[in-house]
Amino acid sequence: MLYAIFAAMQNKPSLYTILSPGLLNLYDVSDSIVVIIDVFRATSTIATALYNGAEKVIPVSGVEDCIAIGSKLNAITAGERDGKVIEGLQHGNSPAEYYREFIEGKTLVLTTTNGTKLLHMALENGASEVITGSFPNLSAVCGHLVQQGKNVILGCSAWKNRFNMEDTLFAGAVIESIKEHFTIQCDSSLMAEDMYHLHKRDLYSFVQRTSHWHRLAAYGLEKDLQYCITADVANVLPVYKDGALALQ
Amino acid sequence: MLYAIFAAMQNKPSLYTILSPGLLNLYDVSDSIVVIIDVFRATSTIATALYNGAEKVIPVSGVEDCIAIGSKLNAITAGERDGKVIEGLQHGNSPAEYYREFIEGKTLVLTTTNGTKLLHMALENGASEVITGSFPNLSAVCGHLVQQGKNVILGCSAWKNRFNMEDTLFAGAVIESIKEHFTIQCDSSLMAEDMYHLHKRDLYSFVQRTSHWHRLAAYGLEKDLQYCITADVANVLPVYKDGALALQ
Repeated sequence: MLYAIFAAMQNKPSLYTILSPGLLNLYDVSDSIVVIIDVFRATSTIATALYNGAEKVIPVSGVEDCIAIGSKLNAITAGERDGKVIEGLQHGNSPAEYYREFIEGKTLVLTTTNGTKLLHMALENGASEVITGSFPNLSAVCGHLVQQGKNVILGCSAWKNRFNMEDTLFAGAVIESIKEHFTIQCDSSLMAEDMYHLHKRDLYSFVQRTSHWHRLAAYGLEKDLQYCITADVANVLPVYKDGALALQ
Repeated sequence: MLYAIFAAMQNKPSLYTILSPGLLNLYDVSDSIVVIIDVFRATSTIATALYNGAEKVIPVSGVEDCIAIGSKLNAITAGERDGKVIEGLQHGNSPAEYYREFIEGKTLVLTTTNGTKLLHMALENGASEVITGSFPNLSAVCGHLVQQGKNVILGCSAWKNRFNMEDTLFAGAVIESIKEHFTIQCDSSLMAEDMYHLHKRDLYSFVQRTSHWHRLAAYGLEKDLQYCITADVANVLPVYKDGALALQ
């Protein structure tokens, strides 16, 4: 009996949670699906734009790249600093800006600092697939990970490499949903699941205690933030391929 | 009224929690007291040896340094790999080995990998004081931090830079005890306090789910581990000065 349990555990793929891009190099991501998580707000906005019919979303780290690619592809350029659209770009980082009538059939070039950095690190380290996750597409992410049956890395984008709460809570939501399908021996995952379990019924009031909330709420973005912690309101699966995120 | 609260907050020193030595460089530790936390088992053993009358404890990262310094000072050398005393050293890492009749008046040279690395990083980055913390000396650490009234960094030693649960739980125990005296705007601290609050009544059963427990319990160290999460059983304050930890 014990042997059977052990054998069953051995056959399950592994799942690890990485709390910051600064810790990614400690993990073997080769042959793994890496889920890029940037809840406030990049990966929530990406899911929303694709859900509303965007052809693809190109994530870039720099403003100059954003302008150059946007110009070349005749695409929408987007990015914010301190709650305002960056000079030279057309739109902001709010998911609310990317409703169907506006974004359908278009390409969005989005500047994000934390998420894009992690995405490129994952690719350089040999990830077999990179997808993006956030509460708006929670179920799509979970369904895909279970269906693929490969090793998984839940990658929190953090804030300038500092641990953040909201990305960890999303990792916890994924773990709570899919843990029976994976071998999980990782304190970060144990903590993430506990934190999500502890706060899932008061997520909105709890995230108001986080450092990121304080930064963004100062710019009047409470409605955005509430949307970004709402499950399955843009339930699609963004997959990275040939430099862009798109639906398969 | 609001202004008064704000002014009071401004006057309180800051407190941050660092979840891994790999994230230390993101924080300004200058003019701060850095608490080195390595619950399983280095900082628990350090507190215990000093509580039982050791003159000082010299933390070193390498085995060769340990042997050389031990020989020069005619001191006790200690270190383990995979649950066994390292060849060339005299004793292990267990706090149980350092009872009063054995350690009183002696110098202990202790090899630790995770904790020593963090300690040296803190010094290089300009920490004003470095102390060590663990459940056995919880109250001594808390009392000192409140009494000094300086900025505080709670530094988790982690495991080869990976987040670990037990160091985070100790950070949470400190925060729960002293938070009213500090300005805390840090998601790591928010999480640490939550995790401690959630598990403080079942600490022993909870840590049995952690990755470090699984590593060490395989070597039959359950009794050690239980001691290492017991508060105030070696309630002294190890302070780093001139290359060694000693009581002031």
